[in-house]
This record gives sequence, C-alpha cells and structure tokens, in this order.
Amino acid sequence: MKVPHRLYLTEDQMPTQWYNLRADMKEQPDPMINPATMKPAAVEDLYPVFCTELAKQEMDATTRYIDIPAGILEMYKIYRPSPLIRAYNLEKALGTPAKIYYKFEGNNTSGSHKLNSAIAQAYYAKQQGLTSLTTETGAGQWGTALSEACAYYDIPLTVFMVKCSYNQKPHRRTVMNTFGATVIASPSDTTNAGRAILAEDPANSGSLGCAISEAVEKAVSTEGCRYVLGSVLNQVLLHQSVIGLEAKKAMELLDEYPDVVIGCAGGGSNLGGLIAPFMQDKLTGKAAPRVVAVEPASCPSLTRGKYAYDFCDTGKITPLAKMYTLGCGFKPSPDHAGGLRYHGMSPILSKLYHDGYMEAVSVRQTDVFKAATMFAKYETILPAPESAHAILGAINEALECKKTGEAKTILFGLTGTGYFDMVAYGSYIDGTMSTYVPTDADLQKGFAGLPTIPGIQ
Amino acid sequence: MKVPHRLYLTEDQMPTQWYNLRADMKEQPDPMINPATMKPAAVEDLYPVFCTELAKQEMDATTRYIDIPAGILEMYKIYRPSPLIRAYNLEKALGTPAKIYYKFEGNNTSGSHKLNSAIAQAYYAKQQGLTSLTTETGAGQWGTALSEACAYYDIPLTVFMVKCSYNQKPHRRTVMNTFGATVIASPSDTTNAGRAILAEDPANSGSLGCAISEAVEKAVSTEGCRYVLGSVLNQVLLHQSVIGLEAKKAMELLDEYPDVVIGCAGGGSNLGGLIAPFMQDKLTGKAAPRVVAVEPASCPSLTRGKYAYDFCDTGKITPLAKMYTLGCGFKPSPDHAGGLRYHGMSPILSKLYHDGYMEAVSVRQTDVFKAATMFAKYETILPAPESAHAILGAINEALECKKTGEAKTILFGLTGTGYFDMVAYGSYIDGTMSTYVPTDADLQKGFAGLPTIPGIQ
Repeated sequence: MKVPHRLYLTEDQMPTQWYNLRADMKEQPDPMINPATMKPAAVEDLYPVFCTELAKQEMDATTRYIDIPAGILEMYKIYRPSPLIRAYNLEKALGTPAKIYYKFEGNNTSGSHKLNSAIAQAYYAKQQGLTSLTTETGAGQWGTALSEACAYYDIPLTVFMVKCSYNQKPHRRTVMNTFGATVIASPSDTTNAGRAILAEDPANSGSLGCAISEAVEKAVSTEGCRYVLGSVLNQVLLHQSVIGLEAKKAMELLDEYPDVVIGCAGGGSNLGGLIAPFMQDKLTGKAAPRVVAVEPASCPSLTRGKYAYDFCDTGKITPLAKMYTLGCGFKPSPDHAGGLRYHGMSPILSKLYHDGYMEAVSVRQTDVFKAATMFAKYETILPAPESAHAILGAINEALECKKTGEAKTILFGLTGTGYFDMVAYGSYIDGTMSTYVPTDADLQKGFAGLPTIPGIQ
Repeated sequence: MKVPHRLYLTEDQMPTQWYNLRADMKEQPDPMINPATMKPAAVEDLYPVFCTELAKQEMDATTRYIDIPAGILEMYKIYRPSPLIRAYNLEKALGTPAKIYYKFEGNNTSGSHKLNSAIAQAYYAKQQGLTSLTTETGAGQWGTALSEACAYYDIPLTVFMVKCSYNQKPHRRTVMNTFGATVIASPSDTTNAGRAILAEDPANSGSLGCAISEAVEKAVSTEGCRYVLGSVLNQVLLHQSVIGLEAKKAMELLDEYPDVVIGCAGGGSNLGGLIAPFMQDKLTGKAAPRVVAVEPASCPSLTRGKYAYDFCDTGKITPLAKMYTLGCGFKPSPDHAGGLRYHGMSPILSKLYHDGYMEAVSVRQTDVFKAATMFAKYETILPAPESAHAILGAINEALECKKTGEAKTILFGLTGTGYFDMVAYGSYIDGTMSTYVPTDADLQKGFAGLPTIPGIQ
C-alpha cells in the first residue's frame, strides 16, 4: 500500500479510552511509600496533594481501559490527532533500507506532548470544584501546556519555574502569562522549602526537585488548591497513552507494525505513552517489538542509576517511589540543554526496564544536536532537544540496518519543537556546547542521599 | 453533515496545480516599469534579478493553472496539507450564530505560510543551476522559510535581516543559521546601498525596503546568484494559491462555502493565496463571497495609501509596480509588532481592491493582541501578530452576526504562530504597547517621494 508522508486519523478514529499499561503487567511496580509513616501509601494519603479522580487513577493497577471524558475529548479534538509521519527524506539521506516513522506531538502551542496530560488534570480539577492549581516547570513545556489547559477550563494556576530557566527563557514566561498563569522563579521566598534553600544559598539557580517541593507545599497549604505534575506519575502515563494508541491505529491503517519503538526518556511521560499499546502486545505475547529509551549521558537514570526507593523532589516532601534514580540530590550540569534532567524515572518504566522488557541507551548532547540539525534539514521540523534524543536513537538504528541490510520498521516519538531552545542550538553551532558526563564519583554523591526505609531499603 | 474540529485533506486530495488569478481578471494590473528605461518591463528585464522560470511566472497573465513540479510536491507533502479548522470554541465564547473556519498555515518550522513560496523559488533556482540566492527578512518568517527550503535543495543563502529585528530576535537568526543560512544585519557595509545609508545615518536600524535593496544588489553583482522575495510579487501569490485551493476543497468536502473570506494584509502573500479560488468564483460570477483585507492602522497601505506606481524598495533599484502604497520612503513606527509593515501591496490585490472586488479595514495593534489572547485561550494556538489581524477581522464579523442573528460562514487565514513575538505579547500584557497611528502629515511625507514617470505618472 502507498504510504503517505503524513497520516492523520479522522476524528472518528481517535481513541476514546486511555490504556492503563499496569493492567497487563505480570508484576506491578512496588507501591509508593508515604514519607510521614514510611509505609505503603493509601489512595487517601494522596488526596491532600492530588485531586481525587487523579489520585484514584494513580493507584488503579487493574482497569485496563478508562473512558476519556467528553469534556477532555472536546479539547483533544482542538489539536489532535497528531500526525504519524513517514520520514522518507531522512531515510533517503541516510541511505538506509529501514522504514522510519515518527509520531509528531509538537503541533500545538505548548510545543509538546505535555498538553495531553495537562488537559486531563485541569479537567478533573475543575470537575472537583477546585479553585486553583500549582505546578513546577523546568524548560517550560509543561508549564506552558498546563497554562493552556487552565485557561481553557478557567482555573487560576501558579507555576514555579526553575530560576535558571526563568531568567534564560523570558519568552516562555510570557507565553504562560498570555494564558493567564502566574509564574514564580524557584527557589522563591513564597514557601518554606524555597526560603530554606535561599537561606543556605541565596544565589541558588533552582532545580526541578526544588520547584516541585515549592509547588506541593503551596498546594497542600492553600484551600481548594491541588498540585499537578507533568511526568513520572502513573496517571500521566495513562493520559499520554493517546500517543501510542493513535500511532498504533495509524500504523494498522498502513499495514505496518514497528520492529523497534524509540522514545526519549526524562521522567518517562512521552516514552510511557508512546510505547503503551506496543508494550501491551509484548506483555501479552502478541508481538515482540524492541523498545528503546534514549536518555542524556549527563542525566543517565536508567543506564547508570540505581533501582531504589527515592523521593520525587529535592525537598523530600513527596511520596517515595521505587524507580531508577540518580538520587534526589543529583543535579545535572546547568550546561545541559532542555528537559530530560529529572533525577528519577517513571516507576512503571523502571519496573519494565528492570524486568527486561525495555532497553536503554545514553547519548551525548553534541551528538543529539547533530542529529537534530540533520533532521531539521530533511524533515523541515526543528526538533526540541529532548525529542532529538529519540531522533538520534532512530538514526543509529537505521544506520545499523544499512550495515546489515535489514529493512526494519522503526517508530520514534518526536515529542516537540525547539523554538524556545535556540540558545542551545546557537551553542551547538558556535562549538561551545558542553559535553559533560558525570563521573562515577559525581554519581556516588547522589546515591549517598538515597533514603533509608525500615524493613524495605 | 457532522463537521470535525480539524479537517486534513488526504495526500491524494492535495492540489497538483497552482491557480493563476490573473487569468480570470477582466482588467489586468498595470505592467511593471523598468527603472532604467521608465518603460514597461519585458520578461528579459527580470532575468538578472529573478531566476528564469520565476520571471516567466511573474509575467504570465494567461495560464490559468500551472502544474506544480514533482520536486516541489515532494516537499509540500512533508508539511502539507494544512488543516481547515472549525473554531467551535471561539464561536461558543463569542455566542455567535456564525460558523467560523480558519486555515492554519503555522504547522511547520518556518511558523508561517511563507514556506509555500520559498520551496517553489528555491526549487526553480536549483533547476536552473544557480549557485546561491539572496533575500531580505523583517520579522524573520520569510528568512526562516527560505533557509529551510535552501537547506533542502542544497543552495547557499544570504539573508539580509532588518537590523532592529536582527538585534531583537537573535533566536530567529539562530534558526536560520541552523538551516545553514548566512544572516547579515541590514543596513550593512557589504553593499553600496547599505554603505550609502550608513554613511548618512550610522545608527540606522534598517527597513524592509533597505534590506531588499541590499539583497537585490548582491544578487545582480554575484555570478550564479539571484534574488527571491516572499511577498508582493505575482509569482508569490501564484504559489500561495495552494492555501486557498486546499481550503476550498476542504470546505467542499464539508458542503460549506464562505460568505466572507478574511485575511491579514502586509504585502499580500497570504491574502492573495487564500482568496484566489474564491475570487475566481467572484470574477466568473459563480459566487459572490465578500473578501476582506485586514491591515494594521500603523501601516495602512490599502485604507489610506495611494494607487500609484512606486518602487518596491527604499533604494529604488527594483522595477516599479502600480499598487496601493504609502511611498517607498514611508517607515512604520518601530513599535509596530511583527510583519505587515511593508509600504506597498501586491499589484494584483491592489487592482482587485481598486476595482471593488475586495474590502479593506485597518485595526490598532492593542485590539489585535486582545483578539490574539482570546483566540489563544479558546483555540489553544498562540497566533502570530500578523495572523491576529485576521482573527480580529473574523471576530468582528462574528459579533456583527450576533447582532443581526445571521448564521454566516466565515473563513479566515491563520498564517502562523507567535513563538518569536513574545516581546510584543509581553508589552501587550504589561500595558506598554504602542497604539501609534500615522497622522495625515506623516503620510504626506511618504507620498511626496512617489516617483515621476514621463507620460504615465
């Protein structure tokens, strides 16, 4: 069959249910631990932080398919379906016999896939009658996505933005302001967590973990307010399953099935969503696609981290999760471009990786930007640095096929666009981009901070 | 029939021919004048500036449909078709009985419709064996689009970027650099035109007209080099007809036809492309849609300009065109955001406006940004300031329908995204945005510079 360059599902073909990967996992991820009791968390323990429906989704390991509410579908239809694109030009430029497909999630103002979960979280908050939300953002994609969603559902939002990004990316702030959000540089003097960090180090340029601590603190201390997170959590992977469901449906229409599925990996939101239905096939024995996570060498949680319980934030106020982690005190180099700097990894993906269902590779950022620049030339999309990790993974697979002569079908996730990352592109062009990789001693410092949990770890 | 939020044509439904509006015009625009002879220009007069095929297209007033070469279709398929979107949410927010559709051209890295003509121009240059191209760019969308196209077809490109934009938008420069283009701030010391301006005013912050002069000079003085322009020209409107052809086809699939077609108007590239097939219906008596150009009050060429022969550039080295113009010496306020600051207007559109086939309105930029912000909230797309002129036009039509109770079908062109215009959004949010409108005395200065052409003007 003739494969078009871009395939869009029709509105009728769009998924009306999310897929919950846990329902097909033979072994479940270990339960979250409540830091107050150091015992497994109950769903009620999450209610002060998350809105009720989302807390239930977080704990639900059995419902295989969950209906997407009509109020969410309505907003999905404004910017979805996203296209499945055949990278004909990239294939030709590489001279590979492989067929390369990518699912492009950057065609919306947030510039990334983050909107898929932001909409769900804002919707459920509105349904519950909450009067405000808080969150954190690093590079700004998640903050932008949630600002869009909160504008749509009319919920005031406060975004704690990692201070170095706040200063380096004023335009990202303005986008969030345009959608009505309040943006605060973190660490700030508006929370105990922020004030404690500033007291110790007034020049602290912030971290995602610190911004999470501040956002959670504000949520639990404000009436009618809850906290929302754009990655790592089970609920986020659930919402992001629309990516994989659409991709699989589109490939079915083309009589295609991927031999290998490749995604960039930070906290796991995109990767977990993209691979969900393909991993289902693998878990249920229907098919055996390879699944590859590509992470930055500067923040290598899967390839060099420990599988252990850790806090999700620097302030150590969130529940503990069993995951691949570099330690919640680990700070990636500030020279590292874009996202993917989180110290941990989604517990679901960590478990799948631990059990051998998934591979992981780490790559250096100069190689990532080389791949990004090549991709921009041949596919005309300027990718986000995060997404370019997956591009490099796909290019490497395709070049391997060139060597072996195999015509594999490769699917990767192109999570977003790089319009707000031009400083990083500039440093790549002028040759000043850092190639920093943490030493073993650097990693040991992070591991040394892993918590002790009586009877467990 | 149930209208989806977004309609994408399939690859097979995409246009394979451009439509040449001149073939159906009862009266043709007046011919271009060669500034060396002050006589109507022959096609050969254009060869030193434009590549041969494009010069022919520029002069072709009779061929109704022109095949899009396969080498161009291949690249169109990478980012097209663009969606036709039903603005259900905006309609609901306005409480209007009108149906609002928009054709969204911002889903590509150039962030605008400009790529449609950039690809065509780079392709023909490559076919002719040219070894380099030059152009100018103001806000940067055209320069970005042409950089993408030149990267794809492997042609070195030099972009003269208006100096104030060059300094204010370093990220735009980096995008062009990423695609391999050389970007020079204009006025520069690399051309006679630039040096002359700098000698008189070393702090000159540049203008589109000056950048055109420099780019044309470099093209005509460099072996194997030609100049390309992103708007105003007949050839550009021809290429941009893909916008209107796709939009009309999509509306046909929905059993819809617009009562009014609305586009923002700077040089006319988007407006001319969007309206082309609808104007054909009007010229041939098949239908009578209203056609409305929306221009900035700060650069009101249609609503307050003169219909006269004028130079297309400040340096007065380009052919003269009969068009609505503010005088090639007219400089819009530097406070004016984004594009749409060109002193003239496409000769085709000028003629249609002059002959009563088209309406024009001018709007103030604070109102434009108010409309942009509302649109972002309800339609989740952050529009370019240029595009937001059309949004405001559509909102005003829809509100008029609310008054009269008419359920009109409105189609407008959403030309691009505003990711690189956050400084302007910021000034709107903090209340410092200029509302400057030129006085009659300001306009008289521009008109005083209109050229004298023996026997004609």
